[in-house]
Amino acid sequence: MSINVPRGTKDLLPGETEKWQAVEELIRDTCRLFQYKEIRTPIFEHTELFTRSVGDTTDIVQKEMYTFTDRGDRSLTLRPEGTASVVRSFVENKLFGLPNQPVKLYYMGPMFRYERQQAGRYRQFVQFGIEAIGSKDPAIDAEVMALAMNVYKKAGLKKVKLVINSLGDTESRQAHRDALIAHFAPHIEEFCSDCQNRLEKNPLRILDCKVDRENPLMGTAPKLPDYLNEESAAYFEKVKHYLEILAIKYEVDPNLVRGLDYYNHTAFEIMSEGEGFGAITTLAGGGRYNGLVEDLGGPDAPGIGFAMSIERLLLALEAEGQTFTNIDSLDVYVVAMGEAAKDKAVSFVSQLRQNNITAEMDYLDRKVKAQMKSADRLNAKFSVVIGDNELETGKVSLKYLANGSQQELTFEEIVEQYKEIATRAMEELA
Amino acid sequence: MSINVPRGTKDLLPGETEKWQAVEELIRDTCRLFQYKEIRTPIFEHTELFTRSVGDTTDIVQKEMYTFTDRGDRSLTLRPEGTASVVRSFVENKLFGLPNQPVKLYYMGPMFRYERQQAGRYRQFVQFGIEAIGSKDPAIDAEVMALAMNVYKKAGLKKVKLVINSLGDTESRQAHRDALIAHFAPHIEEFCSDCQNRLEKNPLRILDCKVDRENPLMGTAPKLPDYLNEESAAYFEKVKHYLEILAIKYEVDPNLVRGLDYYNHTAFEIMSEGEGFGAITTLAGGGRYNGLVEDLGGPDAPGIGFAMSIERLLLALEAEGQTFTNIDSLDVYVVAMGEAAKDKAVSFVSQLRQNNITAEMDYLDRKVKAQMKSADRLNAKFSVVIGDNELETGKVSLKYLANGSQQELTFEEIVEQYKEIATRAMEELA
Repeated sequence: MSINVPRGTKDLLPGETEKWQAVEELIRDTCRLFQYKEIRTPIFEHTELFTRSVGDTTDIVQKEMYTFTDRGDRSLTLRPEGTASVVRSFVENKLFGLPNQPVKLYYMGPMFRYERQQAGRYRQFVQFGIEAIGSKDPAIDAEVMALAMNVYKKAGLKKVKLVINSLGDTESRQAHRDALIAHFAPHIEEFCSDCQNRLEKNPLRILDCKVDRENPLMGTAPKLPDYLNEESAAYFEKVKHYLEILAIKYEVDPNLVRGLDYYNHTAFEIMSEGEGFGAITTLAGGGRYNGLVEDLGGPDAPGIGFAMSIERLLLALEAEGQTFTNIDSLDVYVVAMGEAAKDKAVSFVSQLRQNNITAEMDYLDRKVKAQMKSADRLNAKFSVVIGDNELETGKVSLKYLANGSQQELTFEEIVEQYKEIATRAMEELA
Repeated sequence: MSINVPRGTKDLLPGETEKWQAVEELIRDTCRLFQYKEIRTPIFEHTELFTRSVGDTTDIVQKEMYTFTDRGDRSLTLRPEGTASVVRSFVENKLFGLPNQPVKLYYMGPMFRYERQQAGRYRQFVQFGIEAIGSKDPAIDAEVMALAMNVYKKAGLKKVKLVINSLGDTESRQAHRDALIAHFAPHIEEFCSDCQNRLEKNPLRILDCKVDRENPLMGTAPKLPDYLNEESAAYFEKVKHYLEILAIKYEVDPNLVRGLDYYNHTAFEIMSEGEGFGAITTLAGGGRYNGLVEDLGGPDAPGIGFAMSIERLLLALEAEGQTFTNIDSLDVYVVAMGEAAKDKAVSFVSQLRQNNITAEMDYLDRKVKAQMKSADRLNAKFSVVIGDNELETGKVSLKYLANGSQQELTFEEIVEQYKEIATRAMEELA
């Protein structure tokens, strides 16, 4: 009996993983340019971290977390998102005391949510995210969005759209909250039981309820921008100003609220407008979370960040017909005839690899013809055949598989001159 | 109240993560040269996978797994090692049907074992491993060991030792097993209750018991090499032959048994001989697992692989005094005086980054002097100061911080000529 991959997860196999590597390298490069440094936090955290930061009335905390008790009786949860862990680490490791502020961090790794399965949505998925903690300069809000847009641009995505909104500061949010309660309270019995619970606890969460999405009261609900106080409105203007300086196009969507409790002021999403991309068009989302560091036991350090799904980035690229070049090409396939030739093949393959030349040989005791077929299938650039004759003379014939041209060389000459030989062969072919 | 990282886990912060990135890049390069391709399997698997493959009398399965039930009532376990998942995926995705055999795979990522805390041992740790499935050629056993040794060599480790042994085939193992039972049975009451349980079920596991390590019967126990049948002995000779061809030094240790049930024939460990490295000297371990693919529902495909700890590789490097160069250096720090200058700084920093030049600016509304200090602290190569004057003339003075030399340039000139300017400045300094 065979065992399958757990429901909602999947294996990434060769052919697919190379695309992931390419995207990850692009992301690391971009972070380097923007001077965000990598942080790696554990796969699981104390459950309390997420109930306190993501919010105990959110769908994530109420329905989607992988929570379990370890052998030491601690309640642990596989991280459903990255910001809470980064802020926890910022506080625990006292990064607020570093001389260079804001602290600019990025992370990349698996997250876990127990969600219903659908295309492009997995229970284990990979997020790349950044966090800039320690500055409330609207210019850094713009920088954070610019970094995300830059990643998409470099990856070759063309149809992406930045949508922004302001959730305002505490005072503005309180005013909006009061208005929401007044709006929904008279009709709350029309809503699902979750929403009824949310009304007093956290009415903003009603707006992203998946069950009551179609209720007409959703469309007429009080909108955040109408409740921004002067300071919050001015902050939002400044963010837009810097986006314009960076020549980043955006749309303002007054209905944009993010599904996590810790956001305030700037909130944004990046959507794909590519066709055939399916229902889920959000590629990345983020926002400002002034107050979260304090909530988690740190000083009053403001922060902003985003998270983007790598799966969706790859899906969006596919939808736009973008491809990746294969970086794993094979330079030389070494064919051996007989036991003594195999010994030589083992050492020659090793020598090639020591010199940064990718090399492969047969490990199935196959006949020469079958070995040659492997060379073709693996898309080798060159092949050599070692037999008794080659062992005696110390010379082999290096064959360029694209046109069958051959040249006689010693083993050492191949190792030493490989780069030039390969370049010349390619030029002659062109 | 602040929340801490879960016991037995830790955060990797900037300064540390760069080392990890460097090691990972080195590993990916080596795998490319050896033509091993990446596979990524989920963080958790059905629990049954590990009880069936790692073995239900092993310490890992009995005491160390993070097992939990998900919301769909499945028993899941955070993977304690990588081989079982790779083999599961090999079977599930029918990789045995690929035209190119053996299938050569590598993985890199977190593993989880609930162990007592000690230096260099964490409950979440990172393993890199490779698996070559589909060949029982002793030359591939040698290749697998060569790849591991190659990684250590490239990383700069000098004091490493390869220790090998043969566990033999099923017949040899059965003969050894019988001898072990005969050896331990008369004195089994001297041993811990775990070992008493193991006697009939799996006497080989008694040999790696941590509790009874000092019992004199351990040293006099029947040794595997004495029970190898002719075929197994011949196979082991061939493995050693290919190691010699590859000029890889090794020691044979007849007491080497690995703590997982699925191994047979070749077993090996790579140890650090560096001083001050502590009690745990094993850097990597692996072996052959003919039969495992079949046990997990696939065809009779033989396999061999290893896993290495990235944490211990980094510890060993540190013990040998090896360092990594910082790849995250900053090219230009842009200082701004006043609101209009800040607008220009925002767009100039962005322009630099678009052109592959790392750039940074202030996001704390600090005075010029404090901004200059940041440039120093971040180890910027160059700084520019933008004020009203620079905005008017369109020229800034680019300062090389190593010696204070300056030159007047337009913003565009800096972007376009940066690489040459930087090279020249470094040469003048030398």
